[in-house]
Order: sequence, then C-alpha cells, then structure tokens
Amino acid sequence: MANDKIAGRNPVLEVLKSGRDVDKILVTKGAGEGSINKIVGIAKDKGIPIQFVDKQKINDLAETKSHQGVVAFVAAYKYSTVEDILQKSTKQGTKPFILILDEIMDPHNLGSIMRTADATGVDGIIIPKRRSVGLTATVAKTSAGAIEYVPVAKVSNISQTIEKLKSAGVWVIGADMDGEKAHYDEAFDGPIALVLGNEGQGISRLVKEKCDFLINIPMGGKVSSLNASVAGSILMYEAFRQRR
Amino acid sequence: MANDKIAGRNPVLEVLKSGRDVDKILVTKGAGEGSINKIVGIAKDKGIPIQFVDKQKINDLAETKSHQGVVAFVAAYKYSTVEDILQKSTKQGTKPFILILDEIMDPHNLGSIMRTADATGVDGIIIPKRRSVGLTATVAKTSAGAIEYVPVAKVSNISQTIEKLKSAGVWVIGADMDGEKAHYDEAFDGPIALVLGNEGQGISRLVKEKCDFLINIPMGGKVSSLNASVAGSILMYEAFRQRR
Repeated sequence: MANDKIAGRNPVLEVLKSGRDVDKILVTKGAGEGSINKIVGIAKDKGIPIQFVDKQKINDLAETKSHQGVVAFVAAYKYSTVEDILQKSTKQGTKPFILILDEIMDPHNLGSIMRTADATGVDGIIIPKRRSVGLTATVAKTSAGAIEYVPVAKVSNISQTIEKLKSAGVWVIGADMDGEKAHYDEAFDGPIALVLGNEGQGISRLVKEKCDFLINIPMGGKVSSLNASVAGSILMYEAFRQRR
Repeated sequence: MANDKIAGRNPVLEVLKSGRDVDKILVTKGAGEGSINKIVGIAKDKGIPIQFVDKQKINDLAETKSHQGVVAFVAAYKYSTVEDILQKSTKQGTKPFILILDEIMDPHNLGSIMRTADATGVDGIIIPKRRSVGLTATVAKTSAGAIEYVPVAKVSNISQTIEKLKSAGVWVIGADMDGEKAHYDEAFDGPIALVLGNEGQGISRLVKEKCDFLINIPMGGKVSSLNASVAGSILMYEAFRQRR
C-alpha cells in the first residue's frame, strides 16, 4: 500500500511532477521561499487544495524532522473521472447507478461505503476535492479490497457535476430529513445518482437545491440520525432490491 | 458516563457486591491468595467470565499501578433481560422484533447497530456473555444516545435463548451466506428474531442449526462481506419497510 504522507520540499515536488494523485498539501504559515512558492504554484495549477498551518501541526504529521515545512497527502489509489463512471453503465448496458458523497470526512465511513458500493453494483463514487476524505490507506484498509473495484472521482464542484449528470439523463436524489417520501417509497430503478451528506450537517444547501428530489430514511426511534455509512448502505441496498 | 475498568482487589470486590453489571474479570496467572479467591468465587457464582492473563496485560489495561493483579470490566449501562424484551411487544400490542448478535466483538459495530435498532423499532438486542463486547463506554459513545433506549440482554447460551424465543412464538432467522433466499424475499413482518454473526466467522454452527431458516444478503460485487453493522442495519431496515 502506498504511503499517505510525503514530507520535504524535493519529495513533494517530485510527487507533484509524477502525476500521482495528491489530496492536499500542508505548508507552514509564513513559509514563502523559492521551492515552497514553486510547490504552491504547481499545486494551484493542478487544483490541489493547499492549507497554511502552524509549524507544530507539520511536526506532528510529518513522521520525520526533515519536512522542511511541507507535507503532501498522497492518494493510496488512483482516482477515476465522472466520464469513466458514466461510461461504465453504457458499456454494461445498464442504467447509471452513482453515489455522490458530500463532505464525508471519516475514512472508516468512506471505506465501509465502498464495500457496500461494490456489493450493490454502484458504478462509481463522486467526492468533492475539498472537505472530504480522499483515498487514504485507512480508507483502503476499511474498504476490505473494494477500493480496487469501485472507481472514485474527485471533483472541484459537486453542483456542477450534478448538472453534468442531469444532462446525461441521470436523476439526482438527495437523502435529507426534509425529503417527503421515505426512501423505500421512491423509484430507484432508473438512471440515478444518490447524494449523501455527512452526519453532522447533512447535504449542503447548494447541493440540496440541485437535487431533482429529496427522500428521507424514516427514523422510528428517539435518536435522530444514523451512522453515515449505515445510511448510505441502506439506500444502496434499497436501490439494489429495486433494480435486481 | 461510568468507567469501563475497575482495578484493585477491594474496588473489584465492592463492585461485585454492588450489583452493577460486570462484563468480565481479568486476574493475573498464578494469583491465588485469599481475596483473589474470594473474587473468583463470587464471579463464578454470578456467571461472570474470568480470564487468567499475564501480569503485563493487567499492567497495560489497569491505568494504575495498584491493580493488585485484578481488573474488572464494568458495564457502562444496565442490562435488560430476554423476558423484558419479549414483554415490550406484548405491552405495545406489536409483534416481537428482536436482534441476536452472535459474537460481535467490535464496540463501534455494536454502538452503530444500536443506533439503527432504535431507528427501526427493535424491541431489544440479545448478546452472549462470552465472546462479545458488552455495554462499554465506547459502545455508549458510538450509539449516539441509543444505548438509553434499546434494551440489551446478556445470556449464557444463545442456543437455549433461541429455544425460549421459539416457544414464545418467535421465528428465528439467521443471516448466513448459505441462506437460500435473499433477505428482501423473506417475510420479516411476523414475530421475528434476526440473528447476525461476526464479520470473520458469521453465525456459529450450533446457533445456525437452531435457526428456523437462513437468509442471505445478496452481494453483487467482488468483495465477499459487508461491515457487520452495515449488514445488521440493512436487515433491520428491510424489516422496518415490511412492518410499517
């Protein structure tokens, strides 16, 4: 399994040139010398998120003292694209079945969701570039191998991606407490993309407004939310049941 | 929240006398003096599992140096009984809906399962005394409050408990790869107890033989199993869908 973190100016520059997928780069606040500027420049060109943080944070994360003020988080696995995910169903002669995860931060949740996505025949998963966990080693481990089979595409803007999916004839269904119908009363057997938010906030407002319709997972008890990977899995299996 | 571990001979003796639920007691190998013998005797009378382990293990677990060779794992919450769980549906005028967890060891899985159990109206959860995680502080935290609402009974023998449930008119349905029908093709709208095994081994052979029938959760992909809390949640929501 690939390493998650790469520290030091030259190693980070090399990984940027190698074409490997970099999830984000952390740079110490105030660092502005030549090679750091170069790293920041390349990262910006490639649309890789950059965070400026305290030196102490880099010290804690780097696992080495010779980090020179920069750490890159490298994806353990290669990302796919929305186009490739859409083509999968075309090639198979099936209707698109896509999962969009809006700001899922917990690697265990993403790994567990990938396992269920593999089991239920999801074509691929779409995540945002920012405010989302990427394909880290922990995600790979929790996915129990599913990371090898389920394509994941990382996009700059979920709302724009939803527009693109709609143009391709995909119905975009958001899981939200405000949804009028229960998930099992909605038709999941067409070309669909299910949108799932994080446990705390749910789907963000802008993304919610882009959805064709919203459904809710009924909760009969006193606790108000489910674990995110559980919620996602329930939706995927309901779709699987309807699409068999 | 209650502490998970109590170390030292007098503190352990007192917790045994207090009537609080003790999940298990660890004693250093070779320890056989007066008060240790007393602790072991009381624990045996109460059916509390005792494990004899190396001193190093106690050192690691006790979080204090004055453990005197004994650590008790105390339940963060009170256990219920199978009778109370059965009476719940009688009182509500509903059909029993029970979950039996055969050897679930991971506290995050138990906590997450409790959340879904609350959401889907499960009357209660039955776990074995041995080879199962109990109601620890981690379970309580992961349950996001559901531990306050979902009764959990701990039994010495799952097979005998299944016999008892059958006598009470409950159908006992095991989730197993050998199950012929898919879970969504089976009737879950009667009086039922769903049996779920752990991720590695599934339901144990003896328990499997006691089930009225077995169902499988269909897996369409390349990975061979789901996360245990995900599998349990999918079954509970299918039952919820059918019973609404």
